[in-house]
Amino acid sequence: MRAVVRIAAGLRLPRIRKDRPGSAAGLDRDQLGALRSTSGVVKVTVINYCPDRVLSQEIDDIKRFVADHRPEWSTVCWINVDGLTDMEAIRAFADKYELHPLAVEDLLHVPQRPKVDAYGEGPSGLPGTHPARLFVVAKMLQVIEGQLASEQISFFVGHKTLLTFQERPGDVWDPIRRRLGQSGSQLRRQDASFLLYVLLDAIVDHCFPILESYGDRLEKLESEVLAGAGQAAMAQIYRLRRELLLFRREVWPMLDVIRTLQREPHECMGDTTRTYLRDVHDHILQIIDLGDTYREFAAGLADTYTSSLSIRMNEVMKVLTIITTIFIPITFLAGVYGMNFHHIPEANWVWAYPVFWAVCLLLAGGMLLLFKRKGWL
Amino acid sequence: MRAVVRIAAGLRLPRIRKDRPGSAAGLDRDQLGALRSTSGVVKVTVINYCPDRVLSQEIDDIKRFVADHRPEWSTVCWINVDGLTDMEAIRAFADKYELHPLAVEDLLHVPQRPKVDAYGEGPSGLPGTHPARLFVVAKMLQVIEGQLASEQISFFVGHKTLLTFQERPGDVWDPIRRRLGQSGSQLRRQDASFLLYVLLDAIVDHCFPILESYGDRLEKLESEVLAGAGQAAMAQIYRLRRELLLFRREVWPMLDVIRTLQREPHECMGDTTRTYLRDVHDHILQIIDLGDTYREFAAGLADTYTSSLSIRMNEVMKVLTIITTIFIPITFLAGVYGMNFHHIPEANWVWAYPVFWAVCLLLAGGMLLLFKRKGWL
Amino acid sequence: MRAVVRIAAGLRLPRIRKDRPGSAAGLDRDQLGALRSTSGVVKVTVINYCPDRVLSQEIDDIKRFVADHRPEWSTVCWINVDGLTDMEAIRAFADKYELHPLAVEDLLHVPQRPKVDAYGEGPSGLPGTHPARLFVVAKMLQVIEGQLASEQISFFVGHKTLLTFQERPGDVWDPIRRRLGQSGSQLRRQDASFLLYVLLDAIVDHCFPILESYGDRLEKLESEVLAGAGQAAMAQIYRLRRELLLFRREVWPMLDVIRTLQREPHECMGDTTRTYLRDVHDHILQIIDLGDTYREFAAGLADTYTSSLSIRMNEVMKVLTIITTIFIPITFLAGVYGMNFHHIPEANWVWAYPVFWAVCLLLAGGMLLLFKRKGWL
Amino acid sequence: MRAVVRIAAGLRLPRIRKDRPGSAAGLDRDQLGALRSTSGVVKVTVINYCPDRVLSQEIDDIKRFVADHRPEWSTVCWINVDGLTDMEAIRAFADKYELHPLAVEDLLHVPQRPKVDAYGEGPSGLPGTHPARLFVVAKMLQVIEGQLASEQISFFVGHKTLLTFQERPGDVWDPIRRRLGQSGSQLRRQDASFLLYVLLDAIVDHCFPILESYGDRLEKLESEVLAGAGQAAMAQIYRLRRELLLFRREVWPMLDVIRTLQREPHECMGDTTRTYLRDVHDHILQIIDLGDTYREFAAGLADTYTSSLSIRMNEVMKVLTIITTIFIPITFLAGVYGMNFHHIPEANWVWAYPVFWAVCLLLAGGMLLLFKRKGWL
Amino acid sequence: MRAVVRIAAGLRLPRIRKDRPGSAAGLDRDQLGALRSTSGVVKVTVINYCPDRVLSQEIDDIKRFVADHRPEWSTVCWINVDGLTDMEAIRAFADKYELHPLAVEDLLHVPQRPKVDAYGEGPSGLPGTHPARLFVVAKMLQVIEGQLASEQISFFVGHKTLLTFQERPGDVWDPIRRRLGQSGSQLRRQDASFLLYVLLDAIVDHCFPILESYGDRLEKLESEVLAGAGQAAMAQIYRLRRELLLFRREVWPMLDVIRTLQREPHECMGDTTRTYLRDVHDHILQIIDLGDTYREFAAGLADTYTSSLSIRMNEVMKVLTIITTIFIPITFLAGVYGMNFHHIPEANWVWAYPVFWAVCLLLAGGMLLLFKRKGWL
Repeated sequence: MRAVVRIAAGLRLPRIRKDRPGSAAGLDRDQLGALRSTSGVVKVTVINYCPDRVLSQEIDDIKRFVADHRPEWSTVCWINVDGLTDMEAIRAFADKYELHPLAVEDLLHVPQRPKVDAYGEGPSGLPGTHPARLFVVAKMLQVIEGQLASEQISFFVGHKTLLTFQERPGDVWDPIRRRLGQSGSQLRRQDASFLLYVLLDAIVDHCFPILESYGDRLEKLESEVLAGAGQAAMAQIYRLRRELLLFRREVWPMLDVIRTLQREPHECMGDTTRTYLRDVHDHILQIIDLGDTYREFAAGLADTYTSSLSIRMNEVMKVLTIITTIFIPITFLAGVYGMNFHHIPEANWVWAYPVFWAVCLLLAGGMLLLFKRKGWL
Repeated sequence: MRAVVRIAAGLRLPRIRKDRPGSAAGLDRDQLGALRSTSGVVKVTVINYCPDRVLSQEIDDIKRFVADHRPEWSTVCWINVDGLTDMEAIRAFADKYELHPLAVEDLLHVPQRPKVDAYGEGPSGLPGTHPARLFVVAKMLQVIEGQLASEQISFFVGHKTLLTFQERPGDVWDPIRRRLGQSGSQLRRQDASFLLYVLLDAIVDHCFPILESYGDRLEKLESEVLAGAGQAAMAQIYRLRRELLLFRREVWPMLDVIRTLQREPHECMGDTTRTYLRDVHDHILQIIDLGDTYREFAAGLADTYTSSLSIRMNEVMKVLTIITTIFIPITFLAGVYGMNFHHIPEANWVWAYPVFWAVCLLLAGGMLLLFKRKGWL
Repeated sequence: MRAVVRIAAGLRLPRIRKDRPGSAAGLDRDQLGALRSTSGVVKVTVINYCPDRVLSQEIDDIKRFVADHRPEWSTVCWINVDGLTDMEAIRAFADKYELHPLAVEDLLHVPQRPKVDAYGEGPSGLPGTHPARLFVVAKMLQVIEGQLASEQISFFVGHKTLLTFQERPGDVWDPIRRRLGQSGSQLRRQDASFLLYVLLDAIVDHCFPILESYGDRLEKLESEVLAGAGQAAMAQIYRLRRELLLFRREVWPMLDVIRTLQREPHECMGDTTRTYLRDVHDHILQIIDLGDTYREFAAGLADTYTSSLSIRMNEVMKVLTIITTIFIPITFLAGVYGMNFHHIPEANWVWAYPVFWAVCLLLAGGMLLLFKRKGWL
Repeated sequence: MRAVVRIAAGLRLPRIRKDRPGSAAGLDRDQLGALRSTSGVVKVTVINYCPDRVLSQEIDDIKRFVADHRPEWSTVCWINVDGLTDMEAIRAFADKYELHPLAVEDLLHVPQRPKVDAYGEGPSGLPGTHPARLFVVAKMLQVIEGQLASEQISFFVGHKTLLTFQERPGDVWDPIRRRLGQSGSQLRRQDASFLLYVLLDAIVDHCFPILESYGDRLEKLESEVLAGAGQAAMAQIYRLRRELLLFRREVWPMLDVIRTLQREPHECMGDTTRTYLRDVHDHILQIIDLGDTYREFAAGLADTYTSSLSIRMNEVMKVLTIITTIFIPITFLAGVYGMNFHHIPEANWVWAYPVFWAVCLLLAGGMLLLFKRKGWL
Repeated sequence: MRAVVRIAAGLRLPRIRKDRPGSAAGLDRDQLGALRSTSGVVKVTVINYCPDRVLSQEIDDIKRFVADHRPEWSTVCWINVDGLTDMEAIRAFADKYELHPLAVEDLLHVPQRPKVDAYGEGPSGLPGTHPARLFVVAKMLQVIEGQLASEQISFFVGHKTLLTFQERPGDVWDPIRRRLGQSGSQLRRQDASFLLYVLLDAIVDHCFPILESYGDRLEKLESEVLAGAGQAAMAQIYRLRRELLLFRREVWPMLDVIRTLQREPHECMGDTTRTYLRDVHDHILQIIDLGDTYREFAAGLADTYTSSLSIRMNEVMKVLTIITTIFIPITFLAGVYGMNFHHIPEANWVWAYPVFWAVCLLLAGGMLLLFKRKGWL
């Protein structure tokens, strides 16, 4: 039972906490200023690149950075913010890049459902005075301490700028930073939306090792259950099904995000990016597909586990019944000849004792034969 | 068992009562007048506001209020009616604001399904002589005495007026009343449909704490069941699933309401409102999504609970079988030597008694070994 | 068990009987004449009305009625036929109002699925020489002897005439007949399609008390099952689920009927009627919605009932195991000292008997302690 | 058990056998000629009719028939082929009526999914040099030896000709042949597509008696299960659910066939036929609907049966527990006084024996009282 | 149990392994060159054909082949590559036929989801400088060592060329190679897309024998379970359901592939091919349909198996209860008269012993009668 309790301990449910129902939606300049920064280090990294050059800086003084212009040679500027605690910084970026108050709110109030909001003119854009921006909310999935953890990543895509905001430091983008450093890589020749695609692709591809680990657990459970698993299996199956459900819940909306990016034209989305998003789309489909297959296997396994419990119960009951059925009648017989009646004719026979044993063995043998015929032995 | 009964007691099913099948639909001026007012206090509050000024009044004499005009500076007038018992008042408002008889009937015959009915000219409006109005039915959800209770809120949106009718006093809109009091808030600069959005947003956001409480109960049940819960868990799981079902049933139609408001143009809906409704839409999606995740977890938990019952049964049966199987054969043996046959050779042996005990211990030990091998111990 | 049998007795399945597969579809003039009238009284009622006047007649001589013209002042003529046994009458009406042979067949071969067939010119109308008619098949639901019974009502809507055919006398339209009698009622000012709406509305509203009775039964079962129901509950849950399924099966196609009437324009459908059908549409949605909620509750209840059986089994097994486990070892001990061996040292001890009892009590107490620890007591 | 085995015996699964994966699709003139005719009598019947005349012939010499022209007065020629074994005949018809090779292949390689393929010019027709033809594959369902059997019927509809191919002699079209014989019947006045409709209608209507028989079996099972069925019920429920599934699988594609015929215009489909197909459409909907209702009932019945097994188990366990619990303690007591200790004080009391009995009765009575309280008696 | 373990052993889950999340998508000329060729023989076969001639070659020197031109008379050139290990060869083909980098990546990174990607100009084609190509990913299913194995086949369709890449040597296309060898076969008269159709048709038709084998296993399991199967059935049912799920997962996307090829026009797709794809479409529908029917049967069988376990448990319990209930009371009685009380009046009666037996037989007979009435015997 201890194993079960250990498995059960520390299961966390997904939660959404809203602090102030009834408050105004959207965070404009003034409201942002009023929010207190909480403790926690915020790291801002800026990478400017063009096919020929690349410059990566870590920014300490955000105000000065915001006041400056980008280098003239830069075709794309990627600003990555790790940590959502420094309101000053977020306000500075929101000011400089004219981010929509609703988007800024979604950026801060994690978790949001993955989604694409288009701002600026265009068929699907919201009318208004804000410049053309694509606001994308994505989820970066990781398995931390055996549980699925998701981190919200917010993207603001402009014509030449990509802003990314992460909840915590640490991400899956180091290979991309390396590719940006390689001169002549295709990535350096493309626009900001292509960088968005590359980053999303890395996030999506990171789900494959997670699925891999679920596959391992499922395979182990399968062989355990089919070989007659103990009671720890129950909690493990429950937990695996629960996590596959969570996984699906996190991945599904990402499919919508990619589809929206592919289908709805926006002036910040390049044609090449759209072509390559097909690839991400295929990957998410594969992930969802395999995840669903695992979920159905796990569901079937739960049924099979229940059956295996019944089978084991049957086995136990048969042993009990066989033993009881064999010994109870002959125990009665022994009891009969233990009675203190004065006139029990058999008691005085010389052969009584061996005959008694013979009868007992015959009875027991008959019972065993009967059970054999019923297929219980 | 008492715990179970206590849990079961007082479960209420959702009901819809129709008093007069076959009666005419729609309540026009005369029919409204004929309806008797029932007892119950009705509170009418009127808030007039423009970017510069705000005036909040509680109305006692409805007839005089209806006869008066609104202040000239007022850009939006929000009339909130708490309680549906005063037919005079409702008739007065229906007269003044030319509410459609069908809408008035829906307002009074609670509960209705949340919906949007558009009146007046327009692509989705009903043709007729009634002025342009949006009639919105929403549900305000609260957990009262541990059960989900829903209250119907009816909105009539005009160009410069918003009427809201609540079944009972007490609502979730106090933060909004405070925001109306703050000069310079965005809310004061917008039109009546924006107020509708803000009120709906508050209603929707209020579902998050409800989900929170379901999450707490689910988490508690999860750890109980995985650790081997007692029989009270059965009723608690049933009750939680039941409430999550009710919750979904109440929230789903709200999604339709928001979608209809977003998509179908109406002369009373402002463009800014439409932009901001995207936010409410996202919130409802999150709520439904999380609610469904909880429902699926609860369903899996019910299965796991059934398995845990079988596991416990198996355990009980094993104990019974082990004890019986060990003692029944040796009890028989003891019975044999208790027989009063005259010729039992063993009875006269000097070592009979210790040999008997040795045989018993051997038999019992053999059985234990067998059970060990079967994995029962 | 008798209770169960009583519950099971008399369950009727819905059936559809076709007498003559392979025969021609549609009943034209001649075929109708060839059908023999079966016994059974047929009652024909005609109500002519205009805003100022109303005239209600019961028709005995159908031939004469058919030959006559309607009163000149009449704006709508409602002919209601109770009973489908008099082929002469049906042929007379089919002749006079030029009803399509396929519609006449559907009218006679009950039960049909609720549907709307449009005849005459128009986008959804069948081309042909028949005049513009809407043929509507609806179901009137009632609970008779505790079982859901449905009666087919066929409507033929013309420009100024509404024909209704019922299988049996007795309907839910008396309040409407009363409203037709009230001068100045809105109903009198409208056209024939509005009368159709009013009659359909009455039929639909009559489902609410049926749902009410299901709610009562479900609530009773819920508290029974949660308090540990007996075996009669099994049959009752089965029966309730079965009836909720039947209910859904009957109500769903009615939703299609109303939607078709609302959406597809036909020259016999008035604009006002279309507006008011929104109301019926809302009611059916509410009915289906609540019925589905009840169905899901009943399904959850069935699962919970199964769990409660396992719980009860567990309880019974525990009692058996506790008693057996306590007494079997000490019974063996008593058997040992009942053996007739000549050399049982303990038998001659003075304190043997009290020591024996002490050992028995110790063993029993130890077992009880063990069970307490396992949580079985 | 024998009953169960008998029920299980002879269950056939639906199978599709493909002989030569990788071979060319479509059977043209030459390939048909190369196929060997298998044994089996083929019967070809030709009915020519116009409103005034009808001529029914059985054809022996297919070559001569094919070479001849139809009678001049004939408006429709219905050629029915029973049996697919004579390749010569099929080749002759394929030649004369220019049937498409793909259609000829589908005709021979039974079973195909019911479908409509349009050949010739037209919106949904395949381009090519083949004349306008509708190729319809339908399934004729019958219950043979208690199992659902389906026979593929292939129709080729031309302007004035209808070819039907059946797998085996024997069909459900005798009433139609009789109607063709009646002068003045509507059927004689219509074109070839109307004959198609009449034949499909007969096939569809023949599903009603099959549903009827399922209804009978379901009703019988319902009352058995609710009254506490034996183990034969398990196999019967399984078999019924299996057959309802098969039934659904066969009927569903027929709905598609009818819908395609109704919706997609083709030069061989008459307007009147389209009108009358509405009738067949309604019938299939009714059949599918009722079949699904039966399936859901059967599923609920399976659950209820499982519950009934648990209930029965509970009952058995209670008897065992009651008997054991009453007798085990007093058996121990009897054992105690059967011990051969020299110093058992009670053994010498005069009233010991009656007191012993009194104690036994008290103990047993107490147990019974306890069980009464627990509700086990 | 050994049988079960053997069944469980070696179950493989479908897996997708991604080596380098975050790396660039698409493999262009340079990246291909950088990939190391792994060991493994690659076999390249080229078949050129026109209606009159056919030439089949096995290519050893790929560079020379690529540099050469095809024979002038050739209308279609089919290049088949078995094995994906020789990067040189793949680079050579990618160069010569200007394959898109994304397609080349999908070709190498197996497994991909079956899909159609259109390159070149056209409504569904990706814009770009690449020539018109259809890239089709399909799955060839086989049962290897009792488990479903799938091999990815990639097709590149040009105007006059078809490239196919297989993971391993060995395929299902030998009949097609033979048909290509037959002069006058339809296949030789058609274009490259028709060859694509013929190859896909062979792949799809190869699923029928797989379904056939599932049908055999299901039929065997059905009769076993209905006759009361042992515990090996549990693992077998689980395994069959698992494989039917996998089968469905592999076949479904193939339906999409065929539908896309049928519906979306592309300059490389011929009209005749589109006509004949209808045939493949029908076959996949049949396969999916039958697979789903088998899945539902297997699910029903799992339920029935669970019921059969309960039935068997009931049977075992009944035997136990009957034996126990008959013997326990009379064993007690024997115990009573084994007591060593000095005053047991019955002990001295002459008829005591036969009366005791009579009472025992009466008690046992009474019990048996009771069980008979309860229907336990």
